[in-house]
Amino acid sequence: MPTPETKRRLVILTEGRTEPVGAKTAACVIRYGSDEVVALLDSTQVGKTSQELLGIGGSIPVVGRLEDAASANTLLVGIAPSGGKIPPAWRPVVLDAIARGWSVVSGLHDFLCDDAEFAAAAVKHGARLVDVRKNNEKDVATGEGFREGCLRIQTVGQDCSCGKMVVSVEVARALSRGGHDCKFIATGQTGILIEGDGCPVDRVISDFLNGAVEKQILANQHRKILVVEGQGFITHPRYSPVTLGLLHGARPQGLILCYEAARPHVMGMPGVKLTPLAELRELYEKIAGAVEPTRVIGVGLNSRLLSPDDAERERERVRKELGVPTCDVFRHGPDELADAVLKLQAELYDRR
Amino acid sequence: MPTPETKRRLVILTEGRTEPVGAKTAACVIRYGSDEVVALLDSTQVGKTSQELLGIGGSIPVVGRLEDAASANTLLVGIAPSGGKIPPAWRPVVLDAIARGWSVVSGLHDFLCDDAEFAAAAVKHGARLVDVRKNNEKDVATGEGFREGCLRIQTVGQDCSCGKMVVSVEVARALSRGGHDCKFIATGQTGILIEGDGCPVDRVISDFLNGAVEKQILANQHRKILVVEGQGFITHPRYSPVTLGLLHGARPQGLILCYEAARPHVMGMPGVKLTPLAELRELYEKIAGAVEPTRVIGVGLNSRLLSPDDAERERERVRKELGVPTCDVFRHGPDELADAVLKLQAELYDRR
Repeated sequence: MPTPETKRRLVILTEGRTEPVGAKTAACVIRYGSDEVVALLDSTQVGKTSQELLGIGGSIPVVGRLEDAASANTLLVGIAPSGGKIPPAWRPVVLDAIARGWSVVSGLHDFLCDDAEFAAAAVKHGARLVDVRKNNEKDVATGEGFREGCLRIQTVGQDCSCGKMVVSVEVARALSRGGHDCKFIATGQTGILIEGDGCPVDRVISDFLNGAVEKQILANQHRKILVVEGQGFITHPRYSPVTLGLLHGARPQGLILCYEAARPHVMGMPGVKLTPLAELRELYEKIAGAVEPTRVIGVGLNSRLLSPDDAERERERVRKELGVPTCDVFRHGPDELADAVLKLQAELYDRR
Repeated sequence: MPTPETKRRLVILTEGRTEPVGAKTAACVIRYGSDEVVALLDSTQVGKTSQELLGIGGSIPVVGRLEDAASANTLLVGIAPSGGKIPPAWRPVVLDAIARGWSVVSGLHDFLCDDAEFAAAAVKHGARLVDVRKNNEKDVATGEGFREGCLRIQTVGQDCSCGKMVVSVEVARALSRGGHDCKFIATGQTGILIEGDGCPVDRVISDFLNGAVEKQILANQHRKILVVEGQGFITHPRYSPVTLGLLHGARPQGLILCYEAARPHVMGMPGVKLTPLAELRELYEKIAGAVEPTRVIGVGLNSRLLSPDDAERERERVRKELGVPTCDVFRHGPDELADAVLKLQAELYDRR
């Protein structure tokens, strides 16, 4: 079995959902992760490549059985079934991986290690079950010990799945490439898989959420810049507490507001309208600002649904409306947002 | 051992903290609960009465040993030690109760039933361990199925421990006394002990908080009026997610803003200023209103630190500043707030 020290070679389970939105974990792990990806597992798309289906990953093949990717040593459950439970059809695949002595990595709320059959099989075959969301956070936030000179930036959004993690990673890496001492703080399962550490905030007990986030900051504030992955949005009927706990736990001094242009309504909730960007900005600045003064320093535009011309028009419209740097990190690169971070850093710390 | 059907006869552990704020659970269980309270357990105050120390409870005695309250059948851990862990000095008392076959009821984050020594003793003596905060909430909110005609009121606050639960209970009971079909929705350990049901929201996993609250509403919306106990406050550096999840899960149409006059700063956080009431009102109405239109319909003033004259002046000041009914439910009774609820009910539903 692969130990934490062994290089992981992944098969990513994307059964029936091998497209950029449904398989966003797979796409991001391929794009940003350090693990080798041997294959995608989707019995409905066998013979195609990752590039064809996800727009990334080159010739990584889609296979229908683990034995067709036998050089792997880890199965990653790369999609979340509705309801959060492992569908019966996936169980043989997970058991097959365990029987091979592979690690099985999952970000589902239902833990692999709490499943009696998986747990017993793992013991028998010496396989490792890794539940990314598992945590034992039990400390309340103190609000103390934040270091002057460590700039905290956080992405916030208009919706879920609109690009907060991608923008956070892209901006953090642009800053690192530019020679700045910067770290991406992962707060969701995909981010944690990419970065190798972080906190699965949506799985933390409510009373300890702010404390768990604060701990991530305090542990990393020897760095000069932290870019914290945001989650959900502040008035999400389902997930708003996660968003707010992140803001009050991390105390960002700068926010990057992320959205997807041309999205018709809140994802998965057709009756729920999207809040306009200017209104969102005010709300985020006010509610986060009550704990730590902060402001929106840039906008992360996700223009995947727009033509190149429409994307440029949308970018200009938002730049004009909000008066801050705006870019689609895929179309335009992240430099404009990275520059906005450095400008805030200079404003806050250069005089001291 | 007492079964859920047996009438509980309580000894409430308030060791070293038998005063109105530290022992607020005890005071509220005595004031509002349906369980008989046989004694308070505080070895530092033996021989005094509950009335002398808590201002409620008449001749209920303070004892130093369980054997001096032998007619009881339940030990209630009525205070929360800092850090949330049971202090070593309390363990013999808990074990003594278990050895007597009593139930032991606790609202601590550290569960009695997870303590190997307590669990083994409970099995041996046939005692029941009840962890009020224990829950297995795992459903996200749907935002659907809310019934027209069921009015939802929620208390919100300027701080923790400022009277949200007391105001909720008092208003709900005033409405019930007036012949209205009203239920108090408990969301914290003390409220749950009083009401006999509810949800310990601060112990729910963040992703499922709104869903857990919604479930409480949907299960009780055959009633005409629900008064939901609020928690924390919306910009609390530690607990803000709990406050927000309650608002977005319960979708109250009316809010009662609670505060304690003359409090110097956020409780337990001397560096954190209290937000002015008018500003808080705007913030609550905006952030809750993004999911369900709502407004502050009254203010619950806690004037315990004020002289009678100062309390009247403060009441007038707030009435004038916010333009809504304001009262201290202990000094003035809850009728003015109950009337405000009925006025909102008429406004929303009488025309339909």
